[in-house]
Amino acid sequence: MSKTIAINAGSSSLKWQLYQMPEEIVVAKGLIERIGLPDSVSTVSFEGDKHVSHKDIHNHTEAVSILMNDLEDLQIIKEFSEITGTGHRVVAGGELFNGSVLITDEIAKQIEDLSDLAPLHNPANAAGIHAFRALLPHATHVAVFDTAFHSTMPPVAFRYPVPNAYYDQYAVRKYGAHGTSHMYVSQKAADYLGKAPEDLKLITAHIGNGGSLTAIDGGKSVDTSMGFTPLAGVMMGTRTGELDASIIPYLMAKTGISDVAEVIDIFNKKSGLAGISDISSDMRDIIAAREAGDEKATLAFDMFVNRIQKYIGQYLAVLNGADALIFTAGIGENSGPVRQAIIDGLSWFGLDIDDSKNVVGADGIISTPDAKVKVLVIPTDEELVIARDVEKLKA
Amino acid sequence: MSKTIAINAGSSSLKWQLYQMPEEIVVAKGLIERIGLPDSVSTVSFEGDKHVSHKDIHNHTEAVSILMNDLEDLQIIKEFSEITGTGHRVVAGGELFNGSVLITDEIAKQIEDLSDLAPLHNPANAAGIHAFRALLPHATHVAVFDTAFHSTMPPVAFRYPVPNAYYDQYAVRKYGAHGTSHMYVSQKAADYLGKAPEDLKLITAHIGNGGSLTAIDGGKSVDTSMGFTPLAGVMMGTRTGELDASIIPYLMAKTGISDVAEVIDIFNKKSGLAGISDISSDMRDIIAAREAGDEKATLAFDMFVNRIQKYIGQYLAVLNGADALIFTAGIGENSGPVRQAIIDGLSWFGLDIDDSKNVVGADGIISTPDAKVKVLVIPTDEELVIARDVEKLKA
Repeated sequence: MSKTIAINAGSSSLKWQLYQMPEEIVVAKGLIERIGLPDSVSTVSFEGDKHVSHKDIHNHTEAVSILMNDLEDLQIIKEFSEITGTGHRVVAGGELFNGSVLITDEIAKQIEDLSDLAPLHNPANAAGIHAFRALLPHATHVAVFDTAFHSTMPPVAFRYPVPNAYYDQYAVRKYGAHGTSHMYVSQKAADYLGKAPEDLKLITAHIGNGGSLTAIDGGKSVDTSMGFTPLAGVMMGTRTGELDASIIPYLMAKTGISDVAEVIDIFNKKSGLAGISDISSDMRDIIAAREAGDEKATLAFDMFVNRIQKYIGQYLAVLNGADALIFTAGIGENSGPVRQAIIDGLSWFGLDIDDSKNVVGADGIISTPDAKVKVLVIPTDEELVIARDVEKLKA
Repeated sequence: MSKTIAINAGSSSLKWQLYQMPEEIVVAKGLIERIGLPDSVSTVSFEGDKHVSHKDIHNHTEAVSILMNDLEDLQIIKEFSEITGTGHRVVAGGELFNGSVLITDEIAKQIEDLSDLAPLHNPANAAGIHAFRALLPHATHVAVFDTAFHSTMPPVAFRYPVPNAYYDQYAVRKYGAHGTSHMYVSQKAADYLGKAPEDLKLITAHIGNGGSLTAIDGGKSVDTSMGFTPLAGVMMGTRTGELDASIIPYLMAKTGISDVAEVIDIFNKKSGLAGISDISSDMRDIIAAREAGDEKATLAFDMFVNRIQKYIGQYLAVLNGADALIFTAGIGENSGPVRQAIIDGLSWFGLDIDDSKNVVGADGIISTPDAKVKVLVIPTDEELVIARDVEKLKA
């Protein structure tokens, strides 16, 4: 009996999934929310039941301890030692990590040191790592970096046209995000297309509340829409994506906001679909309001689609053509109307959807047989990638 | 004898071209530089000769007066009243102006009031207007806006995904630039292609020290790469183009720069080709260094080309295909290697250049007969557009 737990620690949350490996069977999964806030909530899903408990959880160390005790109490495991591997999603790997690694004291410190590049995420990731290493000293602990898949980007893609010193001294460059997701769905797409990843040019569209598109050539990320941070790229639920930076001093002068970080916070949290619609950051709400004739929701929807279309065009240019476009994540997997609107505007490129396949629960090719660029929907599974990487490094 | 003068006033310069209209004959042209600085220089080109004079010119009013006296002294005109029209390039027209207009006191004030959107340019444009109105009270004075051609952009293109209030209250949106150039070369391209502008989808690439690309559908701008200001869009001689705004607070923390305007200034003046190459903002220098094997110049060249390719892909998506791509302005008109590198990476789209036509002095179609998307080089002529607009409004 060998179990591996995949961990995704956010600033106030901890999402986990427990696998029986190497069978890749999901034994249980759960989410701890409101860590560090009053009334924290732990949810465990196991054998079809949902167990919810409320208590004050002050930090990630406590959260991990409660999670491990829940696993025992609910008889999901008999003893801690059954868990022989833990895999941790780490948001920023900087230029140090181009693949998953066994966590040592030094690696743990390096992950903390990279907090500059992901101030909200890396400290939480590191806290989860510390807690599991303390509780499960004999397990294999692995860090899986959200940026690693993008480490193959060439300088022409990852460099910004700012003075060289900003890259040389401060590591200002494009790092990207959602790497495990882009990698997973691109490999799965190769299976569906009956080809080796090496023989394919793909564009992956991970579109959820956050979203990024990646240009993948021969299995390798060659460009991606998220940048130095996850603010860049396409318009998102609450984020702007890229824009004219000159807007910032102008807005500060007009609004009286004196701290540039506050403007960036607004660009991260009050913009995107939410900023334009004045309704919601959730695409389902936007679509409902649009169907009811709401003008701002219609504009938000149209802008959202437009920005994704522009990135598809961009990456068709970067790759000089592509074999397939893959939709994944919350909106990409579930929103037929968004997929339809995107593809309808790109018929010139030979993109064409089979309406009968563009449905809820779609998994696989949804384009027409004659489509020059195939279109696929592939549910992403970042936790499985993490569990697999732990398995690989256990040897 | 009816003469019209086209004026392009910068913060410390005044560029002019004198036309015999309606024959559209260039009678003389010139440039006054270092206005407001010691040792100002006025250059007049007339009948094959160049007349250069040095004196201290303190402001635009003085510059205009010196220019008019030069015209008389060199016997280019006999008296001021020969000039019956003046046309002024105005950088920012905001949402007020969607075409050229006769300048009244009210219009002149509105141009000054729009200085928020172009702090370096509109005050200079307004100063030039005041000076000419004072010296030539009986002439027709016309304002030609750099943004007017882009006033046809739909909200999906011109709105940024920031909170609505920033648009409603502060007019934060995409305005674009180089409008007269994009308009001029797109109309000229229609002539070359033997079609009406209404029947064409075009992408115009105005690539000089500053640069912008525009998607033109049926003769109308539907999207353009410059944004709220000319900082946005593609990488330029010294400008970044669009980037991840989160870089700004990070850089301020790292470098100790406390004023966000200073960072924007660096993004405008020390970035782009100059920032990456550490050699020059001039593409000719970059190409020479690249040919000599300089790595940073090679990266600068490749990034420059890459960003333009991405915008071509984007606008092919926005237009859902295009009939032609048009190169213009300093680099677009003169750099065969840049055009070649851009097109070589876009063969999948049916873009293909005839090497024998991609030469110095190219004017017209340079693509192969089978190219699905035609490629043209068209020398731009913003002054002529200005002179024509004056003529139209003289009636």
